[in-house]
Amino acid sequence: MPRARLLVDCPDRPGLVAAIAGFLAARRANIVEADQHSTEGGDGQFLLRTIFDVDGDLDALREAFRAEVGEPLGLEWRIVDPARPKRVAILASREPHCLLDLLWRHERGELDCEVAAVVSNHPDHRAQVEALGLDYHHVQATPANREEAEGRILELVAGCDLVVLARYMQILTPDFLARVGAPVLNIHHSFLPAFVGAEPYRRAFERGVKVIGATAHYVTEELDAGPIIEQDVVRVSHRATVEDLTRMGADVERLVLARAVRWHLEDRILVAGHRTVVF
Amino acid sequence: MPRARLLVDCPDRPGLVAAIAGFLAARRANIVEADQHSTEGGDGQFLLRTIFDVDGDLDALREAFRAEVGEPLGLEWRIVDPARPKRVAILASREPHCLLDLLWRHERGELDCEVAAVVSNHPDHRAQVEALGLDYHHVQATPANREEAEGRILELVAGCDLVVLARYMQILTPDFLARVGAPVLNIHHSFLPAFVGAEPYRRAFERGVKVIGATAHYVTEELDAGPIIEQDVVRVSHRATVEDLTRMGADVERLVLARAVRWHLEDRILVAGHRTVVF
Amino acid sequence: MPRARLLVDCPDRPGLVAAIAGFLAARRANIVEADQHSTEGGDGQFLLRTIFDVDGDLDALREAFRAEVGEPLGLEWRIVDPARPKRVAILASREPHCLLDLLWRHERGELDCEVAAVVSNHPDHRAQVEALGLDYHHVQATPANREEAEGRILELVAGCDLVVLARYMQILTPDFLARVGAPVLNIHHSFLPAFVGAEPYRRAFERGVKVIGATAHYVTEELDAGPIIEQDVVRVSHRATVEDLTRMGADVERLVLARAVRWHLEDRILVAGHRTVVF
Amino acid sequence: MPRARLLVDCPDRPGLVAAIAGFLAARRANIVEADQHSTEGGDGQFLLRTIFDVDGDLDALREAFRAEVGEPLGLEWRIVDPARPKRVAILASREPHCLLDLLWRHERGELDCEVAAVVSNHPDHRAQVEALGLDYHHVQATPANREEAEGRILELVAGCDLVVLARYMQILTPDFLARVGAPVLNIHHSFLPAFVGAEPYRRAFERGVKVIGATAHYVTEELDAGPIIEQDVVRVSHRATVEDLTRMGADVERLVLARAVRWHLEDRILVAGHRTVVF
Repeated sequence: MPRARLLVDCPDRPGLVAAIAGFLAARRANIVEADQHSTEGGDGQFLLRTIFDVDGDLDALREAFRAEVGEPLGLEWRIVDPARPKRVAILASREPHCLLDLLWRHERGELDCEVAAVVSNHPDHRAQVEALGLDYHHVQATPANREEAEGRILELVAGCDLVVLARYMQILTPDFLARVGAPVLNIHHSFLPAFVGAEPYRRAFERGVKVIGATAHYVTEELDAGPIIEQDVVRVSHRATVEDLTRMGADVERLVLARAVRWHLEDRILVAGHRTVVF
Repeated sequence: MPRARLLVDCPDRPGLVAAIAGFLAARRANIVEADQHSTEGGDGQFLLRTIFDVDGDLDALREAFRAEVGEPLGLEWRIVDPARPKRVAILASREPHCLLDLLWRHERGELDCEVAAVVSNHPDHRAQVEALGLDYHHVQATPANREEAEGRILELVAGCDLVVLARYMQILTPDFLARVGAPVLNIHHSFLPAFVGAEPYRRAFERGVKVIGATAHYVTEELDAGPIIEQDVVRVSHRATVEDLTRMGADVERLVLARAVRWHLEDRILVAGHRTVVF
Repeated sequence: MPRARLLVDCPDRPGLVAAIAGFLAARRANIVEADQHSTEGGDGQFLLRTIFDVDGDLDALREAFRAEVGEPLGLEWRIVDPARPKRVAILASREPHCLLDLLWRHERGELDCEVAAVVSNHPDHRAQVEALGLDYHHVQATPANREEAEGRILELVAGCDLVVLARYMQILTPDFLARVGAPVLNIHHSFLPAFVGAEPYRRAFERGVKVIGATAHYVTEELDAGPIIEQDVVRVSHRATVEDLTRMGADVERLVLARAVRWHLEDRILVAGHRTVVF
Repeated sequence: MPRARLLVDCPDRPGLVAAIAGFLAARRANIVEADQHSTEGGDGQFLLRTIFDVDGDLDALREAFRAEVGEPLGLEWRIVDPARPKRVAILASREPHCLLDLLWRHERGELDCEVAAVVSNHPDHRAQVEALGLDYHHVQATPANREEAEGRILELVAGCDLVVLARYMQILTPDFLARVGAPVLNIHHSFLPAFVGAEPYRRAFERGVKVIGATAHYVTEELDAGPIIEQDVVRVSHRATVEDLTRMGADVERLVLARAVRWHLEDRILVAGHRTVVF
């Protein structure tokens, strides 16, 4: 029996679970996992992720769901076929640890996706990426050629379901974000909202913090202010130099980014306002 | 609108969510939280916790649920009224930190329960417990009087919904466990299954571990082998003595026990075989 | 043999350890613990904490150290007698969890100090504090009476070695800090430098962070900007409300503050610029 | 000025620091880092690691230290030249994540060593290892050929300063350990002493633990019982399958092993009985 994922996001009201579960039961779908969350307040939002096994064609199921549940109840929803891997583009700059960690996990089978494009504004990682049988696109990015560079990247990532900024250190313009046509997921090398912007490890050192961290978030027009998906930290002592923080932080970045990408690929993340729900 | 909790535990099969959600929708209940988990394998177990707001009497609702859903589908289930606080008994020995932390949280409003009995085989904590307006029952426990002591404790905890062993260092007999009529929840001062039994901190020191922990679990006849509810750890270095481990571990014990008790009071914990599901 | 602590803080240069250790060896002191750290850069700072057992009078030892080592080498230093407990004042506001946790640890023997004064701008905690045999000083604080209130607090904490702000929510004036004559140690209920200022848990909720924390730091004139002593965090999910964050954070606050106070009492903390060295 | 590391391990007594620091001061060495620990009890052990900058030849310094300090005081000691990278052999089996992570860190400059040999009883990782310019030695290991296989490995690792078992799943004989001539450092995929031996993730799943971990330790004749160097953990929930535990644990294994290897290369680890001191 094929397996499918149903995601729902709509204003909260009574009867939603019953309508959805009733639809699935009528098709003899077996719900194997279900998570539901309602945000607080008068304008509460209803968020649901359910995984079910069901006989038959998913397109027909989608059509039926639209007619019988989605439109009558005015839901925002999607039914996802886990058998179709998402297409992912990865952008990186000089530091390759996040890029290589994602590729390494992909090869190992930890990330259920197709790596559709690897793009960097640095030429250095070509050999390592091509050794994995993937194309490597070097797109130079300077203040002068931003429009041209973003245009080239838009071509390369066209048709992707997700764009991952794996320590890509160029700021993307609102125009790029408007046209990219897919969520953009970034890893920031600090524990947001601390140390927004450049050189967070140097600033963490100077502030004398005892814990450093990393944050994966969806990109919005405002720098480092998009909905947070995942964060993690590591303890540091007075003995750690900026170089030590950078090295220790790199491990946290890798883990946090990998978790966030995996959760996105598994359709576990729903955005509710400025916050994420991670089922 | 009153709020209620529904807990279900049964062999997995299609249609369970639909039947349950349909029942609730027909009564215009609004589901505010729902968690569902199915254990793996051919003999999968279906576990569900849902919280809903509903008009009308909970006893009538229970009766209807039994007739329309519970009996036809052969479910193990209960509908809990969160407005009725559970009755909790707490047993302690010489070390009072877990006992006092629970009482302090209870006073602060963090634990939604009635402290029905405080029992100890040591007389020392009477003043602190009575200062909180609670009775303190000193029940001496020696190898010679075990039967008598357990009999006295059974009287004191009769009618409780939960018995918490807050560093109660006497082993309870299978006979006691058979007769107590409520789940018994224990805190063990190690990261189980490491250091089952006595003096875990001394043994952790001797083994030279770099992390120590604590484990909250339901008590079964086998020592420290019941289903684990919660665990947590703290890093330690070579500078820590056994006394340091004991002191640092006491903080972990307090946190882990408080979380487990809170989750139990909120009906978040379902037991599946030797494991717990914590919604 | 009495035990003593020697703390040294001076510009780094060769021979410091030898001079100090030579002095101690000549008096047949046995060094039982020694930590040393030099900050990086051309203007490196030398920081040392050593614990030793030595025969004879500490005052005579201090005089000899001054003459033979301290003055010739131009050190900033102190020799501390661990047998003389430090005098500590604790200030609190409406939330008593940090205050009570410190008092509870003090009673338990975890904090080697004398609680010389408990001061609060709220009257509510009198019974609990007095039940521990301590005086409770209620000093009302309003925008209008700040000068008078700070004057009264200065009288109450006079002669203390440490002032702990255990969730004391009034801002202290530069004049107070200039006159208090002891280090002031604060717990802030966020992971600094994130969420400086008021209502950090509400703002953490709104930002949608996945980890919350607490920070213990020495107080300087700039709000929440003093040298950080200790930080810790706890993971939170989308299910946590502001109330949940406040409750979960309170546990982190208690732990972080207790560690920082303990380390201060043990003379483990040296301030180097805007950072702390914690031996 | 060249930098050197001095490690000392001997029975504790007064004057040791003075003698050592005096020796270094007389040669105008500048101590940049010093850590000292004495184990408790009447038979206390004195352990010291210090890093200093000094003019001149290290061999001459060693000779002088031996004559003036080491022999007169009966110390166990060594002076290490950080400019000479240690030679490391890495052994792996079917799972390559620990091996590849070490090689990746080595290439990145995080591990200051020479990878002198990569040995595996599986042929699968040859391409990835050779792509890094390293030789890959496939040594088949079966119950029947153990003696021959271990003989071959002894040849390959001869002259190494450290042998790392990066998820090498063959048990090494006491004879091998007696002849290998270097410390052997292993990563075990559980939080020791929990789950000694085979299949720790499956057993952790069955026991229903809420935290899993990994342990780096020196290998002794007794299985998984050698001195622990480092441990770390990750929280897991009831939703995690054995496969999830294996995947999540692999990340902890990589981090814990990398830290332990790095600390060994930096001469931070001293063994005191069954425990390690990690400076």
